[in-house]
Amino acid sequence: MGIFSYFRSKKPTAQVAKNRLQIIVAHERAQNSGYDFLPQLRQEILLVVQKYVHVELENINVDVNRDGDCEVLEFNVTLPDNKS
Amino acid sequence: MGIFSYFRSKKPTAQVAKNRLQIIVAHERAQNSGYDFLPQLRQEILLVVQKYVHVELENINVDVNRDGDCEVLEFNVTLPDNKS
Repeated sequence: MGIFSYFRSKKPTAQVAKNRLQIIVAHERAQNSGYDFLPQLRQEILLVVQKYVHVELENINVDVNRDGDCEVLEFNVTLPDNKS
Repeated sequence: MGIFSYFRSKKPTAQVAKNRLQIIVAHERAQNSGYDFLPQLRQEILLVVQKYVHVELENINVDVNRDGDCEVLEFNVTLPDNKS
C-alpha cells in the first residue's frame, strides 16, 4: 500500500517512539472544473484536529502541493506523549 | 511523491474526467499509547466534507486499514459534475 510507505518514509529516526497524525487531502479537479473548497476545508480540518489533539496551531505543519489537476494538502502533527 | 502515485493508481479509466476528493488520515500510536480518537475524527471529517461536497453520505466511501502501529482512514468521494 503506497500510503503506508509514504507515511513511514517520513519518520525521522529520533521520533520512532512518537505518536503522530498525518492527514492528506487530495482534490482532483478535471481541467480546474468545480468549486475549489480546499482553503475552507483546510481551516475546518485544523479546527477538527485541535478538538482531539492538544497541540498549538503552530505545531501543526501544513503543506500544499499541486501536480497537474491534483491539489494536495498535507497536515503533519507530532502528538504529545501523554494526552494525544 | 508516493501520495500522488497512490492517488493516481486508484483512478479507474472510466472516471478520468471526474472530480474527486480523497482524504487519508494516518494515526500512528507507538505500542497503542495515547488516545484513539479516530472514530470521532471519522465522523467529524464526514460532516466537514458534506458541508462542501453535495453528495449523500452513502456516496462517501470510507475504508479503515491497520498496519502495525499505524491506523489509516481513507475517504473517497466522486464529486458531482457541476456543484462540487
